[in-house]
Amino acid sequence: MIILGIDPGIATVGYSVIECIGNKYNPLDYGVITTPPDMIFPERLAKINREIVKLIREYKPEDLAIEELFFNKNVKTAIMVAQARGVEVLSCVNEGLNIYEYTPLQIKQAVTGYGRADKNQIQQMVKILLNLKEIPKPDDAADAVAVALCHGASLKFKESFLMR
Amino acid sequence: MIILGIDPGIATVGYSVIECIGNKYNPLDYGVITTPPDMIFPERLAKINREIVKLIREYKPEDLAIEELFFNKNVKTAIMVAQARGVEVLSCVNEGLNIYEYTPLQIKQAVTGYGRADKNQIQQMVKILLNLKEIPKPDDAADAVAVALCHGASLKFKESFLMR
Repeated sequence: MIILGIDPGIATVGYSVIECIGNKYNPLDYGVITTPPDMIFPERLAKINREIVKLIREYKPEDLAIEELFFNKNVKTAIMVAQARGVEVLSCVNEGLNIYEYTPLQIKQAVTGYGRADKNQIQQMVKILLNLKEIPKPDDAADAVAVALCHGASLKFKESFLMR
Repeated sequence: MIILGIDPGIATVGYSVIECIGNKYNPLDYGVITTPPDMIFPERLAKINREIVKLIREYKPEDLAIEELFFNKNVKTAIMVAQARGVEVLSCVNEGLNIYEYTPLQIKQAVTGYGRADKNQIQQMVKILLNLKEIPKPDDAADAVAVALCHGASLKFKESFLMR
């Protein structure tokens, strides 16, 4: 079972591709898709769409696990990120993936067993669970690994959350 | 010159296809794309994407004119609409359209010459400018006609607004 994890964004989209074999997780790929702020907005959406489709066709994941969006103080940024997230979800559903979404609380609990874990604790657990030498960089890539691991754990406990 | 107008939404997306010939506007099509609230969200995005692509391939517009988003009180609805708008823009840029966006104020001024015009005044002007027997229904379709007319007028005055 291969899971695509996405930490939604417009300037930086974190992604991870994780293979689950029984209780083990095998990281196939992780990193970030970036779009420069001086690129016009529709082209930024198109670039994100192209790169996600490319990842899906390379690794053939069955499920997308994506973080839920919460509004921050900067409304303009929030609107841009929400539009990008729509494109990220569309890119996956059009390639036949099942779409699951998780809140930051669910991700923390699944990865560390503790809903108030800080960023560093989550990143340390990501490193341990995947048997990595280093924490994935940048943070967005580590976040994308965490949401994929959360979905992997949720599937085991039959508590996965289909996006509705 | 054929313009696609879109009033962004998730449950109801208004669309219009308007041909501009000199100072005249010829309505080729207008209406709404709807997605039921009990359809899962990724499928709603996919349906909007499919229907916009179908419209574009049928009428071959060169430009998209879409309303800018403003946040209303309901944050959950705003996030959903913003995600759908991302898909609406992507559907058009992937089909090669140039993307323009206009604020409600710009649309009112372009269509009625008056920035504080009410909905009924805009709809009456839409009916007159397109030489229609009736006001386009529902409101979302009339709004999509208005944004396309706004872009048509903006092109004449070389004051069109490319999305950045």
